[in-house]
Amino acid sequence: MSGIEALLSELQDIPAETDRALVRQKSRDFFWYSPVLKRQLDKLTAEAVVSPRSEDELARVLAACVRHRTPVTPRGAGTGNYGQAMPLCGGIVLDLSGLDRVLWAKPGVVRAQCGAKLGEIDAVTRASVGGELRFHPSTRRTATIGGFIAGGSSGIGSCTWGILREPGNILGLRLMTMEESPRVLELRGPDIQKANHAYGTNGIITEVEMPLAPAWTWVDLIAGFPTLEAAARFADGFTRQDGIVKKLVSVIDAPVPQRYFKAFEGVIPDGVAVVLLMVAEPFLDLVPGLLAAYGGTELYRRETEAADVPLYEYSWNHTTLQALKTDRSITYLQTLFPPPSHLAKVAEMAERFGDEVPMHLEFVKFGGEVCCFGLQLVRFTTEARLAEIIAAHEAAGCPIFNPHAFTLEEGGMKKVDTLQLAFKREADPHGLLNPGKMLAWENPDWTPRDGVHLFEAAG
Amino acid sequence: MSGIEALLSELQDIPAETDRALVRQKSRDFFWYSPVLKRQLDKLTAEAVVSPRSEDELARVLAACVRHRTPVTPRGAGTGNYGQAMPLCGGIVLDLSGLDRVLWAKPGVVRAQCGAKLGEIDAVTRASVGGELRFHPSTRRTATIGGFIAGGSSGIGSCTWGILREPGNILGLRLMTMEESPRVLELRGPDIQKANHAYGTNGIITEVEMPLAPAWTWVDLIAGFPTLEAAARFADGFTRQDGIVKKLVSVIDAPVPQRYFKAFEGVIPDGVAVVLLMVAEPFLDLVPGLLAAYGGTELYRRETEAADVPLYEYSWNHTTLQALKTDRSITYLQTLFPPPSHLAKVAEMAERFGDEVPMHLEFVKFGGEVCCFGLQLVRFTTEARLAEIIAAHEAAGCPIFNPHAFTLEEGGMKKVDTLQLAFKREADPHGLLNPGKMLAWENPDWTPRDGVHLFEAAG
Ligand SMILES: Cc1cc2nc3c(=O)[nH]c(=O)nc-3n(C[C@H](O)[C@H](O)[C@H](O)COP(=O)(O)OP(=O)(O)OC[C@H]3O[C@@H](n4cnc5c(N)ncnc54)[C@H](O)[C@@H]3O)c2cc1C
Ligand SMILES: Cc1cc2nc3c(=O)[nH]c(=O)nc-3n(C[C@H](O)[C@H](O)[C@H](O)COP(=O)(O)OP(=O)(O)OC[C@H]3O[C@@H](n4cnc5c(N)ncnc54)[C@H](O)[C@@H]3O)c2cc1C
Repeated sequence: MSGIEALLSELQDIPAETDRALVRQKSRDFFWYSPVLKRQLDKLTAEAVVSPRSEDELARVLAACVRHRTPVTPRGAGTGNYGQAMPLCGGIVLDLSGLDRVLWAKPGVVRAQCGAKLGEIDAVTRASVGGELRFHPSTRRTATIGGFIAGGSSGIGSCTWGILREPGNILGLRLMTMEESPRVLELRGPDIQKANHAYGTNGIITEVEMPLAPAWTWVDLIAGFPTLEAAARFADGFTRQDGIVKKLVSVIDAPVPQRYFKAFEGVIPDGVAVVLLMVAEPFLDLVPGLLAAYGGTELYRRETEAADVPLYEYSWNHTTLQALKTDRSITYLQTLFPPPSHLAKVAEMAERFGDEVPMHLEFVKFGGEVCCFGLQLVRFTTEARLAEIIAAHEAAGCPIFNPHAFTLEEGGMKKVDTLQLAFKREADPHGLLNPGKMLAWENPDWTPRDGVHLFEAAG
Repeated sequence: MSGIEALLSELQDIPAETDRALVRQKSRDFFWYSPVLKRQLDKLTAEAVVSPRSEDELARVLAACVRHRTPVTPRGAGTGNYGQAMPLCGGIVLDLSGLDRVLWAKPGVVRAQCGAKLGEIDAVTRASVGGELRFHPSTRRTATIGGFIAGGSSGIGSCTWGILREPGNILGLRLMTMEESPRVLELRGPDIQKANHAYGTNGIITEVEMPLAPAWTWVDLIAGFPTLEAAARFADGFTRQDGIVKKLVSVIDAPVPQRYFKAFEGVIPDGVAVVLLMVAEPFLDLVPGLLAAYGGTELYRRETEAADVPLYEYSWNHTTLQALKTDRSITYLQTLFPPPSHLAKVAEMAERFGDEVPMHLEFVKFGGEVCCFGLQLVRFTTEARLAEIIAAHEAAGCPIFNPHAFTLEEGGMKKVDTLQLAFKREADPHGLLNPGKMLAWENPDWTPRDGVHLFEAAG
């Protein structure tokens, strides 16, 4: 009996899958967005998928895996786009989508199990307390809340609320440790950062408590501008309108929407840069005047819920996906254009890279200031050229959250998160949770080398 | 029969008051906050107070006043602190406190008559749709919504939502014109600025439609800091926390709270600068860590509704009122410390004026940026010295919204608001509404002279 067979036999009635094709399917996320990750991770697969249906079952799975020293890769919906949920060392994929209950909602706050889908949480809280999650990734219709917190960062709503890391955007996390006798901890306040965006390397999030924003009737709008600069200036000004309730302010330069937004064929004139907006219905009166002040024209308007495909599925990382549907050579960047000179830097990079790196910006609040993330498309040629483009952005003062790296440190802040590392020592002493994703676990003194390290680490 | 008697006789059953003492009482607001305005306005009184109970009655009053060419000074609760509601030219005070119905509320939006009190609107919307006004002056318990919009600007909640002038903070105004046959207009979108903060000079606001924020359980907090600088840095950082729901971030330097905040005797150690906070209950977990990071200590915590006197009645213009209760020689400034160098300018002015101008700051969002308004106390000596202090602030790049002037132009932007002036030509062709408050009506080319003009205009 193989190690995995022995493990599974101990789990008795807890659902488990060993069919190779099915296991391979659940061993994959959206890593293939990146040609670099595609090369590195394409062949990986776990040995089994285990799907606990309750916290008790989860505890039994984790305890057994500790006894067997079996690596565990947690998985929500597997929509991560940096290979966060790719099993680097075999073992099991821990499918958490069965822990999907919304536990309670009161005005302003919801508590749900980790596997609840974002859109479903919103449906429940909208109906029961008139609230919804402050923000969500563009994968709202499929992604889980646990996966968003463990693997995501920001999204539709971040133009108002900032990113997950800003204090207050997560109120509580219930977490199970990876020990012979798994413990359950409730993290609140600053402790939340121990497990937020840790790729599930230092505990399994079983429940989350999230603040709610009012659930408005949202309206999708597309506005056209003669230039990228005009679109970006409007987007910046609009994001600063604290009195206008909004959820999305995206800028996408020509020719991206014209070429890749099939659903909007004929809507967006050639050469026009667009701004995608989601605005709460009562504030629509104010949009035409603001558009006019920046030389913009309204091209499209529709209630979000009434649209076949909501506009947010053309924003954030979905913009890249829409392009990939037509052109498999497209990949992307994730850039911070830091305030207060973000607009100047956008202009500088747009000028420098032209159509090789078509501009796509998401306007957000970040540390209390308006600025923008670049989720620029890249017409991929070689890994070396991609590394060059990244290095040039960083040299110009535009940090890259590298979506072509699958480790926490390389993708994120380019340094060891000592809080998360210390917490992993407590919560996963054997290093079995999503192994290989936290470089600091193997090497606490890890520091980045320049530029190309990004592509060599797992090379 | 005098002009007023003739007018009143036409109004029949509409309540009117001519008793001199009672009329004088309703001819006064909080102008006496300013020693300058006290000298200028103390003797003024209207000839009668008329109190319509419906829009129909209001129309009859206005039509009659137009026929008689009787000046009309609208009045909500008379809590304005720059003499906005002082009748400069006799005539009637139009008491609007009888138009006090909350008309409807739905999630996110309320519509009320102009005379509804702010606190009562909140009570209705909290109970019916879980919402409350985004922000309110510290006179929330007495002031009317119409008076706030016509005469106020900002307040508790502006740390999140900005000021009334920011688009979206007012959704609609219903307005009656001052003509032989009064018309009723609904102003929406950018048109709202025609009557927002116009001191009732260009129409009577009869109804308002306002956006609502979620009605959280608010908690009052006082934190102490060793220095003004530390308190201001914390306040600035706290206001930038977009994930933490807050309604108040005030900084008050020693010795103001120690000397004048009677209810907090013993709570605030000598020499300590305080920050007053209102934070929504679910976010309290995050306060201690943030305080510690800035060297702050929590001194007081209590649910806002449970306190005898809510903390907000020590903030905004109430800080001055608390000081005035003990020391009649206190007056105040209203200063913009513009971003991004607001903290440096605060330090510069604190250094320069010391205890002659004790520092009081309200942190706000303003044009999409965090900055602070100064509502500094001033130990008043002479008008000339007050003018000097004001001029010094303006010369140092800190504009003063002068609370020692009763005209729109001198108190506010130091220039003619052409939109409001044009609208007055339409809505009040005979110049009968609150005459003398819009300088541009008499002189459309009005421009400010430097410094002392502020005290000469009505000298
Ligand atoms: C088209 C597209 C658009 C996207 N848009 C955005 C966006 O706008 N913003 C954004 O932030 N992300 C975005 N993403 C990334 C991703 O979709 C989101 O972060 C999503 O929320 C992940 O949820 P999931 O359930 O799919 O997580 P998964 O991909 O299953 O997991 C993500 C990570 O979390 C870990 N994990 C999952 N569940 C748990 C748990 N309960 N406890 C501990 N660890 C766990 C996994 O091991 C993995 O490391 C996008 C991806 C795609 C493909
Ligand atoms: C202690 C104290 C604290 C204060 N704090 C603040 C604060 O934090 N923020 C702030 O903005 N203000 C503040 N104020 C000023 C004032 O209290 C507020 O602006 C308040 O909202 C005014 O409402 P009111 O009903 O008393 O208006 P009033 O004083 O009665 O009227 C104000 C102005 O509006 C006009 N007006 C009134 N009703 C109408 C109407 N229906 N149509 C047209 N014109 C009308 C009047 O003619 C007058 O010009 C403060 C004042 C005091 C004394």
